[in-house]
Amino acid sequence: MAKHDPDLSRLFHALADPTRRAILTRLAEGPAPVTALANPTGLRLPTVMRHLSVLEEAGLIATAKDGRVRSCVIVPEAMAPVRTWLDEQRALWDSRLDRLDDFVMTLMKDRET
Amino acid sequence: MAKHDPDLSRLFHALADPTRRAILTRLAEGPAPVTALANPTGLRLPTVMRHLSVLEEAGLIATAKDGRVRSCVIVPEAMAPVRTWLDEQRALWDSRLDRLDDFVMTLMKDRET
Repeated sequence: MAKHDPDLSRLFHALADPTRRAILTRLAEGPAPVTALANPTGLRLPTVMRHLSVLEEAGLIATAKDGRVRSCVIVPEAMAPVRTWLDEQRALWDSRLDRLDDFVMTLMKDRET
Repeated sequence: MAKHDPDLSRLFHALADPTRRAILTRLAEGPAPVTALANPTGLRLPTVMRHLSVLEEAGLIATAKDGRVRSCVIVPEAMAPVRTWLDEQRALWDSRLDRLDDFVMTLMKDRET
């Protein structure tokens, strides 16, 4: 039953934390060095680095080092499997509603005859 | 920086597990008793009950007891904040791309003159 999709699990896990979501929102405006991401969080740098690791492992951000400065950039296409999963769920739900509609219509027709 | 949105964190956390996602997919087809949800997972009932609790706390499912049988039903509208957040992120990203486009156009015009 449990379809093995570790990528999707990693994505949802990465998005389940408010600090990580805030970092993504900041990076949607443009690349930023780690220190600039850390400052507004009020968290210690090692904590922020751990959050960035989770985001990077999920593929949501990429980081690159230029001298002593590590910069982060968002990878927006990494969100695609999340959208696909949500769309699949909605399609399942919609098709169930359609089947219920058909069933009710059949019941009503049966009553008319 | 970290906007406090515990509902969104709970939703993403609930979706971060393959067993919980499989249960939601099954429930998208219609309500089901707990035992019918547990069987295909190959997991012990208490483990499945814990997964169901996480889904219920996130608002993604509702459960009701009829005699000795506990049944579960999906609450599809509970997914709305996830979709809203994804749409907001995409809008931020798109507006950044638009600004980059404008910037490149300005550069090109400057070169022409």
